[in-house]
Amino acid sequence: MKKNPVFVLAPDSFKGSLTAKEVCQAMENGIKRILPQAVCIQVPMADGGEGTVQSLVDATKGQLITLQVTGPLGDPVTAQYGLLGDGETAVIEMASASGLHLVDEKTKNPLTATTYGTGQLVKDCLNRGIRKIVLGLGGSATNDGGAGFAQALGVRFSDKEGHALPSGGAALSRLHHIDTSGLDKRLKNIWIEIASDVTNPLCGENGASHVFGPQKGATPSMVNILDVALNHYASLLKQHTGKDIASIPGAGAAGGLGAAVLAFTQAELKRGVDIVIEYTHLREAVSQADYVLTGEGGIDFQTLFGKTPYGVARIAKAENKPVIAIAGFIGTDIESLYDTFDAIFGIVPGVMTMAEAMQTASRNVERTVEQIVRLLEKDSGS
Amino acid sequence: MKKNPVFVLAPDSFKGSLTAKEVCQAMENGIKRILPQAVCIQVPMADGGEGTVQSLVDATKGQLITLQVTGPLGDPVTAQYGLLGDGETAVIEMASASGLHLVDEKTKNPLTATTYGTGQLVKDCLNRGIRKIVLGLGGSATNDGGAGFAQALGVRFSDKEGHALPSGGAALSRLHHIDTSGLDKRLKNIWIEIASDVTNPLCGENGASHVFGPQKGATPSMVNILDVALNHYASLLKQHTGKDIASIPGAGAAGGLGAAVLAFTQAELKRGVDIVIEYTHLREAVSQADYVLTGEGGIDFQTLFGKTPYGVARIAKAENKPVIAIAGFIGTDIESLYDTFDAIFGIVPGVMTMAEAMQTASRNVERTVEQIVRLLEKDSGS
Repeated sequence: MKKNPVFVLAPDSFKGSLTAKEVCQAMENGIKRILPQAVCIQVPMADGGEGTVQSLVDATKGQLITLQVTGPLGDPVTAQYGLLGDGETAVIEMASASGLHLVDEKTKNPLTATTYGTGQLVKDCLNRGIRKIVLGLGGSATNDGGAGFAQALGVRFSDKEGHALPSGGAALSRLHHIDTSGLDKRLKNIWIEIASDVTNPLCGENGASHVFGPQKGATPSMVNILDVALNHYASLLKQHTGKDIASIPGAGAAGGLGAAVLAFTQAELKRGVDIVIEYTHLREAVSQADYVLTGEGGIDFQTLFGKTPYGVARIAKAENKPVIAIAGFIGTDIESLYDTFDAIFGIVPGVMTMAEAMQTASRNVERTVEQIVRLLEKDSGS
Repeated sequence: MKKNPVFVLAPDSFKGSLTAKEVCQAMENGIKRILPQAVCIQVPMADGGEGTVQSLVDATKGQLITLQVTGPLGDPVTAQYGLLGDGETAVIEMASASGLHLVDEKTKNPLTATTYGTGQLVKDCLNRGIRKIVLGLGGSATNDGGAGFAQALGVRFSDKEGHALPSGGAALSRLHHIDTSGLDKRLKNIWIEIASDVTNPLCGENGASHVFGPQKGATPSMVNILDVALNHYASLLKQHTGKDIASIPGAGAAGGLGAAVLAFTQAELKRGVDIVIEYTHLREAVSQADYVLTGEGGIDFQTLFGKTPYGVARIAKAENKPVIAIAGFIGTDIESLYDTFDAIFGIVPGVMTMAEAMQTASRNVERTVEQIVRLLEKDSGS
């Protein structure tokens, strides 16, 4: 080990207990206990899902914007998005305005739930002169093909009689005309990167309604109503834009929000972790590293290893750097991970409940990383 | 790391799940997955308590002897002891013949429980021409000052009327005469090393009856009866042997068995782990090692770090070798351990029940040691 080794700390959040930034800090504390002179570069990570705004804001020293928008049920909700440190990029999680956590068992209704609030967040970005938006899909309460999102930005969806359609995916079965004359002109100056790891198309058996509808409260008959409605919507979108957006892999993410974003804005779909890697400049940090540490919490017994540690490890391998992962839970059958990871350590110190593990997560990250550094330092010292 | 590094594997058993030998094997499996050419020296360890016979038999390629003896309640029980690979040393855990696990809530009775069976095990050693005995105290159901042990080897305890005393500590209050004329003469040719980490004297507030009596079923009045009886016994022992055995630290171990062993045989008290270190030739193994691995299971949340890993680490430090410990549970406030251990890793892969942790212990040891070796190997390779 060099005298002043450089550690790049690039973990995901430990869901339910620590943000990625907090994991970074616990890792650094563990390292510094043994090597006070070590250089630690904190790069809090995310995979495009929950925690992406926080991690990118933390990683770039940006700020959080809080505003009131229309929630999935039409009621006002308080949402947040991030302005990155570069001053021209925003990062939005659609779930903040239109997420499943904003409804409950009784109120959830995928027939009428709307992405209008997500469109309002984008509108706020336009008002601020933002040039680029990272839009994280996932965790949505909606199945409206992004119609609400488009409405918030000025698109008018009307029926045969010329009446504006009400909120939600079910009403799209009556869609007769799409009017984009009112679409916010400033969208031409903005580029949206859609972070999604879902490859489902908008319609059909693998589409938004069939695959994700049930978890949003759709009964089998609702699923059929919604799928038929989105099919009709897709054919009018094709007619209007000339593009077969419905069949693009990922158009079915977040209840079809991807389809509307692709149809009405300048956008492209990307893997969430790849976007995060880009905006955090992870590769540049890793190129200076002697060791790369990553990790994730793991929220239940089914969780093996997520997208973030994998994404980080791929970068580390490309740069030929040792990469060590820590995790709240290590599953069985992890053999294939060793192609990418040099070592993987669990952090829980023994038998305990999930609540205890959550409460002691910071201490457990710190202690485990300390042991790893002890070992690295010991070996070269002996 | 050298091309063919030498690992000394010296763990304690993981109580309830793996013998020390099984831990060694899991450690070796983990090492060999990464370094098939590594040399692994297995030295299954113990601390003089439960598992000592198995570990010393395993470490020296000895054998187990099974025989029927008198249990603590007077009924026959099947007991085991070990013959070490040197052919002239036996290792006995007193609990095998006279242990608390041989009684239950209903039958336990420290007033009458006897160490007679432990004496029978020693007698069997005499019959086999054994020269040295390691006698592990601890886990006893008895509070008889070792009187039963002595009786089995030919000592006669009688009352005023000359009648032989019945079994148990309570009867010792009537002790009037000790007759050692029938004591087995072959005891002169044998040396007994008493493995005990308890420093309690035979009698008084810190004595066998007060401190350990209650866990064997003694009520407060029984404790007083037994302490008075052992006090009387001690004064006659002093009269008979000329030695104030009762006040020797450790004489109160195993219900006072230590006192009788010291009074009637050639014996000395030693720390359990030191005896195990001696008989396993751990120091010689460690002197050839590049790395020393130790560990223990930890049976509950109160268990921090036991005697065995400490003992092993002290040897490793004396030989200036890196020593890494693994454990089923790592407590808080382990700072002081880093004076002795280079690193300490927990083995459980995440939140799970004690039963699950027990069931998966072998796999968890193997996986954790594999990660340690990956790290050691990686660092020198990078």
